Amino acid sequence: MRGAVLYGPRDVRFEERDVPKIIKPTDAVIKISSACVCGSDLWPYRGIQPIAQPTPMGHEYCGIVEEVGSAVRSVKRGQFVIGSFFASDNVCPTCQIGYQSSCQHRELVGGAQAPFLRVPLADGTLVATPDLPSEDLIASLLTLSDVMGTGWFAADAANVQPGSTVAVVGDGAVGLLGILSAKQMGAARIIAMSRHASRQKLAREFGATDIVTGRGDAGVARIKELTHGIGADSVLECVGTQESMMQAISSTRPGGYIGYVGVPHGVALDGEQLFFSHVHLHGGPAPVRRYLPDLIKLVLDKKINPGKVFDLTLPLDQAAEGYRAMDERRAIKSLLRP
Amino acid sequence: MRGAVLYGPRDVRFEERDVPKIIKPTDAVIKISSACVCGSDLWPYRGIQPIAQPTPMGHEYCGIVEEVGSAVRSVKRGQFVIGSFFASDNVCPTCQIGYQSSCQHRELVGGAQAPFLRVPLADGTLVATPDLPSEDLIASLLTLSDVMGTGWFAADAANVQPGSTVAVVGDGAVGLLGILSAKQMGAARIIAMSRHASRQKLAREFGATDIVTGRGDAGVARIKELTHGIGADSVLECVGTQESMMQAISSTRPGGYIGYVGVPHGVALDGEQLFFSHVHLHGGPAPVRRYLPDLIKLVLDKKINPGKVFDLTLPLDQAAEGYRAMDERRAIKSLLRP
Repeated sequence: MRGAVLYGPRDVRFEERDVPKIIKPTDAVIKISSACVCGSDLWPYRGIQPIAQPTPMGHEYCGIVEEVGSAVRSVKRGQFVIGSFFASDNVCPTCQIGYQSSCQHRELVGGAQAPFLRVPLADGTLVATPDLPSEDLIASLLTLSDVMGTGWFAADAANVQPGSTVAVVGDGAVGLLGILSAKQMGAARIIAMSRHASRQKLAREFGATDIVTGRGDAGVARIKELTHGIGADSVLECVGTQESMMQAISSTRPGGYIGYVGVPHGVALDGEQLFFSHVHLHGGPAPVRRYLPDLIKLVLDKKINPGKVFDLTLPLDQAAEGYRAMDERRAIKSLLRP
Repeated sequence: MRGAVLYGPRDVRFEERDVPKIIKPTDAVIKISSACVCGSDLWPYRGIQPIAQPTPMGHEYCGIVEEVGSAVRSVKRGQFVIGSFFASDNVCPTCQIGYQSSCQHRELVGGAQAPFLRVPLADGTLVATPDLPSEDLIASLLTLSDVMGTGWFAADAANVQPGSTVAVVGDGAVGLLGILSAKQMGAARIIAMSRHASRQKLAREFGATDIVTGRGDAGVARIKELTHGIGADSVLECVGTQESMMQAISSTRPGGYIGYVGVPHGVALDGEQLFFSHVHLHGGPAPVRRYLPDLIKLVLDKKINPGKVFDLTLPLDQAAEGYRAMDERRAIKSLLRP
């Protein structure tokens, strides 16, 4: 089969790879229905995160179970399944408490930008839909594998409640789905920080009530103006830079909550500043598995349509263009069809 | 009158100062019943925090109202009152949400190691007891002004719940009262990190079920052993150094909570490490005012006896010895009687 492999900065190749096989009895192999490019893939793509060797790309996936190992009990050949970018056993103490992305036996899933994918710990990782979903729902179901689950975790970690005032730092796909999540959780006011017309439009469609275009001190000042001078109850940090983290901390009211899901790159927090900010801070790799059953239901019931974040659809063999378009911010998120 | 003034590292003098007067109509002046030395006073005492000029010391206080400004309505001359180290108006949006120590009009209270003290924003800051308390309760009531309120906030910020497993980093007075607080909140297991026999004893008296003497990796390993390999649900960080903060983060389970109340000195948190730790982080200067009514009731009802942290009582004119004893860890906390 042929799949996307990253060789170095801005060097994505579509090339022959071995078809994945069952290695452990707890594995499954799935036939990919759709895959996509993650915002976090841009860190190594841009050379900010080093790559030791050619790396099969893609960790967001959904598809049809092709084969399962001898120990797998909860999914079977022919089912449509979605899983997280971290495989988890879903039975260890950490999983049981809802932090499957810190599972004691977690394994990163990789190489989903290909026709087939091996998923470890299939019983703990994959969730099957009741029936085969219709074609128009595939894109939304795919988002549950990472980007939508991550936006949901950002809102959950930021303690969004009915009536909350929420600010969202970052207008990438995660930030936009953080807005959708906050709306679902009942936020009364959702302030999107964005300078891009197409993203502002989608932000409003997902539930944003206000748009702030300023950054840094100007952005913070505007958010304070909108929040009785004290800052937002909940702030979703969906970027992962020092600047975005500071923006989030400064935009949160004393006693307010920050959910941070942008993988931090070069972020250092000053203890004293954080202390006197009085914020709650929670984040990390989203425990997508915890949310999958509820989010699948929301998609199948057509309550949410997170697949709208895909504004570019390409055949899998054009994966490199999918990366380029996101890198150059021509696309919010690229869907790849095998 | 004569009070304690810090001139420089390890240079506390007991010297003549002006008797405080009402400056603003919202002020009160109180006659100090008891004052004490705070662990945070040791930062400037040790020269770690610079002092620009001779500074009247003491920010933990209780006493009898001597005089009130013309605008003061809620307390009157002759009442016994307790207040926080941060004066607050208790009506601004930040106060209303329970973060009085980030009040929009907050003012630091200082100079309580003296016979009289001016307290700004008296209506919002001071809480009176129903009657004049008996002499044996004064020490416990004094702790509510800071150290006990801070220990309580540490446990509250660390989300201690009935049945929780809690670890406490720091065996100073705040850490010990964090143990007492966690016990009151129903923690099932409380692990105190301490190497000092007298502090271990008080820790057990306050509710600690386990003592860990190891520090660094050894301390973390022992806490993991005691917590099914994953770490504590709640960790109270009561020191404020890089080492203690790292100890707290490493001792918390994924999805667990850290309440940090040690004023950070030279602490920098690595964003990526914090992200993958999956902890909740909350702290800051304790909103003591929020807790005062409930804690006063617990003391008056003799449900808690936080005054036990005072293992050295001195006349006010020996304040310098109170500092020395705490600096040398001969005393947990020094009570000063005018």
